[in-house]
Amino acid sequence: PLGQGSANAVGMAMAERFLAGRFNTPNIQVTDHFTYALVSDGDLMEGLSAEAASLAGHLGLGKLIYLYDSNDISLDGPCSLHFSEDVAQRYAACGWHVQTVADGDTDLDAIDRAIGAAKSETRRPSLIVVKTTIGFGSPNKSGKAASHGSPLGEDEVARTKEALGLAPGDFVVPAEAQEHFRKSLERSRASYDRWQTELAGWKDAHPDLARTWEGAWSGTLPEGWSRELPVFEAGEKIATRVAGGKVQNAIAREVPWLWGGDADLSCSTMTSLADEASFEGQGGRGRNIHYGVREHVMGSIANGIAYHGGSRSFTATFFVFSDYMRPAMRLAAMNHLPAVYVFTHDSIGLGEDGPTHQPVEHLMSLRAMPNLVVLRPADANETAHAWRVAMEQTDRPVALVFSRQKLTVLDRSSHGAADQLARGAYVLRDSPGGAPEAILIATGAEVHQALAVQSKLEAAGKRTRVVSMPSWELFEEQSPEWQESVLPAAIQTRISIEAGATLGWSRWIGPRGKAIGIDRFGASAPADVLFEQFGLGVETIAAELESLFD
Amino acid sequence: PLGQGSANAVGMAMAERFLAGRFNTPNIQVTDHFTYALVSDGDLMEGLSAEAASLAGHLGLGKLIYLYDSNDISLDGPCSLHFSEDVAQRYAACGWHVQTVADGDTDLDAIDRAIGAAKSETRRPSLIVVKTTIGFGSPNKSGKAASHGSPLGEDEVARTKEALGLAPGDFVVPAEAQEHFRKSLERSRASYDRWQTELAGWKDAHPDLARTWEGAWSGTLPEGWSRELPVFEAGEKIATRVAGGKVQNAIAREVPWLWGGDADLSCSTMTSLADEASFEGQGGRGRNIHYGVREHVMGSIANGIAYHGGSRSFTATFFVFSDYMRPAMRLAAMNHLPAVYVFTHDSIGLGEDGPTHQPVEHLMSLRAMPNLVVLRPADANETAHAWRVAMEQTDRPVALVFSRQKLTVLDRSSHGAADQLARGAYVLRDSPGGAPEAILIATGAEVHQALAVQSKLEAAGKRTRVVSMPSWELFEEQSPEWQESVLPAAIQTRISIEAGATLGWSRWIGPRGKAIGIDRFGASAPADVLFEQFGLGVETIAAELESLFD
Repeated sequence: PLGQGSANAVGMAMAERFLAGRFNTPNIQVTDHFTYALVSDGDLMEGLSAEAASLAGHLGLGKLIYLYDSNDISLDGPCSLHFSEDVAQRYAACGWHVQTVADGDTDLDAIDRAIGAAKSETRRPSLIVVKTTIGFGSPNKSGKAASHGSPLGEDEVARTKEALGLAPGDFVVPAEAQEHFRKSLERSRASYDRWQTELAGWKDAHPDLARTWEGAWSGTLPEGWSRELPVFEAGEKIATRVAGGKVQNAIAREVPWLWGGDADLSCSTMTSLADEASFEGQGGRGRNIHYGVREHVMGSIANGIAYHGGSRSFTATFFVFSDYMRPAMRLAAMNHLPAVYVFTHDSIGLGEDGPTHQPVEHLMSLRAMPNLVVLRPADANETAHAWRVAMEQTDRPVALVFSRQKLTVLDRSSHGAADQLARGAYVLRDSPGGAPEAILIATGAEVHQALAVQSKLEAAGKRTRVVSMPSWELFEEQSPEWQESVLPAAIQTRISIEAGATLGWSRWIGPRGKAIGIDRFGASAPADVLFEQFGLGVETIAAELESLFD
Repeated sequence: PLGQGSANAVGMAMAERFLAGRFNTPNIQVTDHFTYALVSDGDLMEGLSAEAASLAGHLGLGKLIYLYDSNDISLDGPCSLHFSEDVAQRYAACGWHVQTVADGDTDLDAIDRAIGAAKSETRRPSLIVVKTTIGFGSPNKSGKAASHGSPLGEDEVARTKEALGLAPGDFVVPAEAQEHFRKSLERSRASYDRWQTELAGWKDAHPDLARTWEGAWSGTLPEGWSRELPVFEAGEKIATRVAGGKVQNAIAREVPWLWGGDADLSCSTMTSLADEASFEGQGGRGRNIHYGVREHVMGSIANGIAYHGGSRSFTATFFVFSDYMRPAMRLAAMNHLPAVYVFTHDSIGLGEDGPTHQPVEHLMSLRAMPNLVVLRPADANETAHAWRVAMEQTDRPVALVFSRQKLTVLDRSSHGAADQLARGAYVLRDSPGGAPEAILIATGAEVHQALAVQSKLEAAGKRTRVVSMPSWELFEEQSPEWQESVLPAAIQTRISIEAGATLGWSRWIGPRGKAIGIDRFGASAPADVLFEQFGLGVETIAAELESLFD
């Protein structure tokens, strides 16, 4: 989709610098390449590409080179319909080195010279505006929107070949072109072999670095990487966002190729790597990326970093702004990229910031996305395991959804073990005295509501089960036996508790169940007041559940 | 959320021009105002605001004035962490008139002069960069991020008042300020009264225009507005996007204050108003807005147009790009704005463009959003009624989800009437010979699969009901009696057929039902091949349903 490539390229160029900063030694540059992107008028209309331009300029990504195919035609007609800015000046304003090639159709030498100059400019990213004619050579369709979204057609292809002096027929490759590509292959092969030799020398000289390098490129986590994960003490009150920050820092100490950043909210998302510097785009040192208020490009850059390979990267912002990143997240899921998204402030529990900042539909709308794992832990120890699961993914992204508000760390000596989070859902606690008569399924902060309801009903002589269900996707992947052991078919008196859209919960609570949630936008008030007002208070839920017993 | 206001302001300024173009007469300017926006560093980092800047500059919205509170501080610290572009130059590149006020803290005259100059510049929108100190006057927190996201605190407020020479205590308004606002109120009242007098004279002189004006401002559709809605003939094969374009044009002929546009896809979305010119931002003539490839600002501008009042507006793009507009759609829903979103190319049915352009999770993720009506009509006549429902909304947005592929117009003499679309779901056809044994629920294009399955099962002696369910939201609003009449509780053998995420369908099909859908990303192939491969072929569905009978 338009704009995405322009942003992915920034991520690739950042990854190149990061690896250079981590692995290059005074004598050997194991990572040292340019990143080229072909961009179009449509790409440069998308706000995503503007975010990319601003950040790339800020970081001074001198080895990033855009070739802008400026043909002034978009799908609906001439760009003069909707695009009349001075693109060159806009990129210059963003700190880019800008050149223009007046005739990109025939003056290949000019393009070559511009690329040479772009490579020489090492402090700024480069934009080369290449003026071209769309459908160049086509007698009837060149320079027209007709050659944008549709094929030229058989006749017009024949006429175009004739006009360009090319041999007729399909799949005819001119001898000069073959020769050109053959030489290019030779050059590339030689260059690759030279690099392999250098790399081998570098590995011999730096065995520790080499081990890290190999882990980073294969995505293999270092031996014992999760040994030092914090264990939180029962009874402590700590927001999962705060716990998440501690866990993430512990992981980052063991996994030097984990880096990432946030959209100007690190004080709130708690995702700064405490002992690490800010990433800068020249030497690539620093592991904390300051994305600014640019959520969309943050997601697309994370994709670019993953496409590049050699590191793992996380992003962080408020959960409600997952909407801004959604197009990038979809591509991560589609392309099996193991991005880690930290989303904090996950519900009305954030309180006074009000409905614009309170996620309601976000959990469900992300669960609807294929190949994305959504994880919403109930306490600090589930949070540690959520990060563990996230790090262990190799072919899909994970959204870690954390609370703003403090949550009590559960006593695992009397509750199911937190490492069962990896199975998506598990029995957190059964009432004593026999098989449960009803099941309460909850996620995240609302698990604590479920436990309070359970204890209330116990006092009234009713036995219930509380199931913590941090991830639908992981639970769906478990064996039918596990699923049955957590949610026995025999127990159909069920409620779900989640401070969000109820759509979809019928799947787990069945036809006799009741979904407790929020099917409206939030409001601005202290979190406790909101939970009460929106029907998520313990008394209300207990009454709902009791009514199901009747 | 950051960026949204900057884009809403562009919509407001466009609405002002549109109304001026429609209603102003040589002697009387009934619509003639400036639009002011206060924007921040954070606003200008969002790609959304870059799209807004590019389009506003292109349109030459000379009556739009931004005051940019440039304080160089964001939540995490100084903007130098992530924002170092030359904003003034960037806006100039986008065709804006740019001024800078060096001392926005104390030099109010300079701000006033800049606003005067901005008003005099009528061909370009204006950006006034006002350099300010965040937390100005606070001895300990001015110029620091500490005064960005948190209150100063009681002590620091006291010290700040002291430093600024203000009286201590809460809610103390200096006499000069009171006097200033009193005078402002007088001026405004006089100006308002003058306008009311002019308006009354204008109404007398132009009774036809006045009637339209009143309808436009109250949102009352003209008498008989839907009389000329096209009725499509049974058996015709026509994509709902094509039918939608015809319906929309019929409505636009009757409702002169309906306008809108598309994100460079009008040739594909079919949403151009055929007899109307392109909107231009000076005189405001034209009803077709060319948004360019800028989906996010399209949604936010639609919101701005709705906030302004006096017209109705639609947007159009491919359904997959609803992801790009989602933050704006959420605000429309939250703020009860009756925007109309046309989304075409609604499933794998679009074929070869492949998974990046094939919506899968989009229907369900939009259904999860409160206060948004999602409508996916099954044929051309349902499409006409979908547009009717959309136009009749006054306090919530509607997403119209249309097919790219051709669909047969259903014969309503043997099927339920299309106007029942307004009830969200209805019985399209029961097999003859007695009460149905099973229900097939489908939406949009897949209704035709359901009918084919029904007819196959009839041949095998099985009686089924086909329910067309164009809108979950509208169906949920019906009486329990209607719901029961469409989906009788007694019939629990049910399948749903929708070419998208199955999450949520359990609600309607119950525990014994089967949801047929697509819980993975799509693929690039002809649509027919994809439907077969993804288990949506008639044979496959018929077999699934038959297995439920066993």
